[in-house]
Amino acid sequence: MAIANKQIVYSKTPAPAIDPSLTDGTFAVKNTSIAEPIPDDKVLVRVHYLSLDPAMRQWLTATRSYIAPVLIGDVMRSNSVAQIVSVGSSLKNEFKTGEWLVASTGWQEYALLTAKEAKAQRVVVPPGCTPTDAMSVLGLTGLTAYFGLLEVGKVKPGDTVVVSGAAGATGMVAGQIAKIKGAKRVVGLAGSPDKCKFLTEELGFDTAINYKDKDWRKQLKAACPEYINVYFDNVGGEILDACLALAAPFSRFAICGHISQYSAAKPEGPRSIMMIIGQRVTMQGFIVFDYAKQYPAALKELGQWLVEGKIKRKEHIIKGGLEACPQGLVDLYAGVNTGKMMVELAPLSQAIQSNLGEKL
Amino acid sequence: MAIANKQIVYSKTPAPAIDPSLTDGTFAVKNTSIAEPIPDDKVLVRVHYLSLDPAMRQWLTATRSYIAPVLIGDVMRSNSVAQIVSVGSSLKNEFKTGEWLVASTGWQEYALLTAKEAKAQRVVVPPGCTPTDAMSVLGLTGLTAYFGLLEVGKVKPGDTVVVSGAAGATGMVAGQIAKIKGAKRVVGLAGSPDKCKFLTEELGFDTAINYKDKDWRKQLKAACPEYINVYFDNVGGEILDACLALAAPFSRFAICGHISQYSAAKPEGPRSIMMIIGQRVTMQGFIVFDYAKQYPAALKELGQWLVEGKIKRKEHIIKGGLEACPQGLVDLYAGVNTGKMMVELAPLSQAIQSNLGEKL
Repeated sequence: MAIANKQIVYSKTPAPAIDPSLTDGTFAVKNTSIAEPIPDDKVLVRVHYLSLDPAMRQWLTATRSYIAPVLIGDVMRSNSVAQIVSVGSSLKNEFKTGEWLVASTGWQEYALLTAKEAKAQRVVVPPGCTPTDAMSVLGLTGLTAYFGLLEVGKVKPGDTVVVSGAAGATGMVAGQIAKIKGAKRVVGLAGSPDKCKFLTEELGFDTAINYKDKDWRKQLKAACPEYINVYFDNVGGEILDACLALAAPFSRFAICGHISQYSAAKPEGPRSIMMIIGQRVTMQGFIVFDYAKQYPAALKELGQWLVEGKIKRKEHIIKGGLEACPQGLVDLYAGVNTGKMMVELAPLSQAIQSNLGEKL
Repeated sequence: MAIANKQIVYSKTPAPAIDPSLTDGTFAVKNTSIAEPIPDDKVLVRVHYLSLDPAMRQWLTATRSYIAPVLIGDVMRSNSVAQIVSVGSSLKNEFKTGEWLVASTGWQEYALLTAKEAKAQRVVVPPGCTPTDAMSVLGLTGLTAYFGLLEVGKVKPGDTVVVSGAAGATGMVAGQIAKIKGAKRVVGLAGSPDKCKFLTEELGFDTAINYKDKDWRKQLKAACPEYINVYFDNVGGEILDACLALAAPFSRFAICGHISQYSAAKPEGPRSIMMIIGQRVTMQGFIVFDYAKQYPAALKELGQWLVEGKIKRKEHIIKGGLEACPQGLVDLYAGVNTGKMMVELAPLSQAIQSNLGEKL
């Protein structure tokens, strides 16, 4: 017996933009299978939701980085919300079918995980929350917002906080945490009027600016009459430059992502870099993994805020199965999504059973 | 009675480079005088040595900064080594003629100072040191190196430390402190073979690279096989970019100056800014004034190192009096100097008496 397992593999180096075509593009479909019974020391998971993340473009380039690049021929790396559908014979006491995980399965329908991989990623969410929360507000994007704003940005009551990519999975949580922590002004930058409306009307941002407006720099200046104390940067490029020009003395710039530059043939540096001296700016890049020891406490707080409604969630779910991933990634870089972008391979209603009770 | 007092005033906005001509350039000569007897509540100082500093170009531009700009018509701002030559009648118990100060007199031959201004700037140097030391290693440039490397750069034993503008007044002290603190490799960038020789042979830098060499980036990479833990930046531009590309994980970039960019019509940002995330770089701008409370302890340590020969001094003294200042400043930006650049208005041998004993 064998289970059919479709995969999407990295096929061709982007030059520099991702080509979503599955016939001659950056990625290709590969049909494989997993033999049954599965190995004694493995669990088999079925992937329900695949995460699409801005960092992915970087993983396709062999630069010196915090993580090894994905190599041509590899299944594309990705986190996913997955459910255990079969447990190897030696692991029956440790796992049961129906358990939910957020695991680095990559772009495929099924994956075999070691006990260690599976254990580290068990989904624990508060009542009322869903497995997909564990991949957004209660997952790496929420944690990234949390540590970026609190540990790197060191937000204080009264601060003016600017968030770019504010309608994205990380940005929207960062802005909401800033409000929770007493920021005087939270200003979000996003790429459409709808997104801006969502930020101010749904999430409580004080101002939202469409960076596609011609006068966005002017709007940003007007929104920050006491300059910027904390900038949470998801985009780099022109917006980072504009925020540096508006930096308040002793401000903190938490550099989380550079989505505007990932596919740029010639990345641009911020021309206002000299402000870093006059205003004594601290600009710090960070990776959420460095705060792993503090995840449990952070997740407890994020979970509480989510349940209390102080943080609102927003998912952007792409239907169309595995084949929709490459185009979804292109859309992510084009800024199509509001909230956490994921690709549905199998809805939660198809789950075989659950450790999360009736709520599903 | 009156004392003739020549001044150099700011005359015309640079566009963007400083024009050293005294007839139709950035600065102009102004002949004034100071009435005698001087006011009861003032001291009169004679300027012996004027400091030329990279920050000066920035003071001529009305951008938002840590310090107010110099305005057209003002005497050009500058620190100087000056000696009290006359004391107002109400201050006779507080000051005596012959005392040395490092004061913000500006580009002029004489200046009247309040008691407060004069008190804050009394020169206290260890035996064997001179008043001009109080304007370099034991003054703001030495303190800038000290706090930049220790408080911002957080240098640790075993680190690879890169210093740009390494043959300048601040850079040469920064590199020497790095060695004292146990850095494994100290690499300096400077603009001539002579400067490079000076850094390695006189000051103990492990490697010195002439950034005018075509292959300087290659040389820098070779000099930092374990990447860069601390970068002390005096220049910005291309060299900051190259150092970011070579940043070690969790490295500290102490941003002290951007001399390569001050007169640039179109400043350039570092294209390798994305490394800040992957390598979790902390890039921090600083101004020495923010550490004023820690000056006494720092000066004690710097003085000890200087007396023990662990830090070597180097002065680049320009003769030619006040009129030599504008060209001196142009030369500073062209990188003509090795060590602390100052303009001599009156040699120490012309001092009227001294509180520093026989050593002068």
